[in-house]
Amino acid sequence: MANDQDIEKYFEFAKNLTLKAGQTIKDVDDTDKIIKSKSVGKDLVTNFDCQIEEFLINALSKEFPDHKFIAEEATGLSELPELTDSPTWLIDPIDGTVNFIHNFSQYCISVGLTICKEVVLGIIYNPVSCELYTAKKGQGAFLNEKPIRVSKITELKKSLLAFEVGSLRVQKNRDIAWARFLALFDSCQTIRNVGSATLSMAYVAKGAIDCFQMDGLQPWDVAAGMIIVTEAGGTLIDSKGGPYNLMKPNIIVASTAQLACEVTKLIVDTDLKTQRKRLQRT
Amino acid sequence: MANDQDIEKYFEFAKNLTLKAGQTIKDVDDTDKIIKSKSVGKDLVTNFDCQIEEFLINALSKEFPDHKFIAEEATGLSELPELTDSPTWLIDPIDGTVNFIHNFSQYCISVGLTICKEVVLGIIYNPVSCELYTAKKGQGAFLNEKPIRVSKITELKKSLLAFEVGSLRVQKNRDIAWARFLALFDSCQTIRNVGSATLSMAYVAKGAIDCFQMDGLQPWDVAAGMIIVTEAGGTLIDSKGGPYNLMKPNIIVASTAQLACEVTKLIVDTDLKTQRKRLQRT
Repeated sequence: MANDQDIEKYFEFAKNLTLKAGQTIKDVDDTDKIIKSKSVGKDLVTNFDCQIEEFLINALSKEFPDHKFIAEEATGLSELPELTDSPTWLIDPIDGTVNFIHNFSQYCISVGLTICKEVVLGIIYNPVSCELYTAKKGQGAFLNEKPIRVSKITELKKSLLAFEVGSLRVQKNRDIAWARFLALFDSCQTIRNVGSATLSMAYVAKGAIDCFQMDGLQPWDVAAGMIIVTEAGGTLIDSKGGPYNLMKPNIIVASTAQLACEVTKLIVDTDLKTQRKRLQRT
Repeated sequence: MANDQDIEKYFEFAKNLTLKAGQTIKDVDDTDKIIKSKSVGKDLVTNFDCQIEEFLINALSKEFPDHKFIAEEATGLSELPELTDSPTWLIDPIDGTVNFIHNFSQYCISVGLTICKEVVLGIIYNPVSCELYTAKKGQGAFLNEKPIRVSKITELKKSLLAFEVGSLRVQKNRDIAWARFLALFDSCQTIRNVGSATLSMAYVAKGAIDCFQMDGLQPWDVAAGMIIVTEAGGTLIDSKGGPYNLMKPNIIVASTAQLACEVTKLIVDTDLKTQRKRLQRT
């Protein structure tokens, strides 16, 4: 098991690396971006996603040869590698790739480290706004080295939510996602969609968003965000209630336990209604 | 009719005033925000909306005693004042009030000036990101004094859209808005929702968003954005095609005329389908 000194060493190295990587995607000329489509037409990747991931993995594996990696572009459409007890870096080189393609400022690099299957540090960096969100286990969460806290909102009706419309893309889940969206929209103050799950979690951590809900995420989308939100005093649970699963994240990320519970209840009720309607149609 | 020298004088004065006003809402302590609900429960206003509007109107009317004003908080729920040929300032003290309340960084001050019913200058300032978008008629659009241009995107399938889910709030229009949302979502690359119509227009102007569509806006939401987008090379039309109406803005704001046409066609077709479904139900 790593001690605090090890974690500090991993953190400092990864933080500097992430800042360096961020510089390479700041003010990129559009003509330098090579855009490719992954499996489905709308899931895009650029040469910069691949370059940054390679840069981070190369440097980290040189410095820490026994560490493992679970990263977006290397994993691709293959099955997820198993998460072991070994120190494992979970990397999303650019979360919000479509935003990056369009120079819409909401994108970031996300780097988390698990030891014994638990996230021990997280780094999120938006190179446009120069916002660096960080956390180490048990030591609080920070934005550009200043401590951050989640909001104190406990009621859905007073909350600002983040919800990704990207989840409406999968046709078979569209009625579920839309029903959730409307139910949440009617119950909260209003909803925003920034196009980056990782940044949505960072915004919960700093108190600018009160709750973020999304299913079907990947471990590299959420690892860093999870520890940053938790260390900022937030609550993370599975969308259907109970503990979340880092390797299969369907999550509710909320400023308070009360808010997380209210959202879970609404989602479970709404999903049931949607399923009932489906059954009536068949 | 004002000459370029007059417009330059109005612009410089209003720009400095807007920057000054922006400082007063940067890093405001949450405990200083007094939040009130307007007519409907979710339409919120703070003491800062009123203070900034008052500050701007007082200073502008002192400097330019014969100028008129159409501003969000002063107008309230009353009927809109008539737009005359006199120089008239259209002011939204805080566009994105809910974002401001939650410290979600997407809010701004919007100041436009019409002369002979035509917008001759526009100023949009986001005090968090320190982004100042400006334009004077015939002189181009600028972000922090650097020229900006809309994107070159001509096809909806390659575009990043901004769409305000706030338009789903009005129950009787919900099926229209949702049908539009889905039709656009299926046809474009993806959709974002920042919670500020004014900033969405600014983002079209700088090329970060390719198209923004929203109905039911107010003149103070769009006056500054309209000239900034136009001067940045963008296209502005009514949602149903044809020229837009500054005093009753239902708008498509697009990077190119081709994109604007494609979106209009999609919206007109989608609205027709929605109306047909309504008729079938009754």
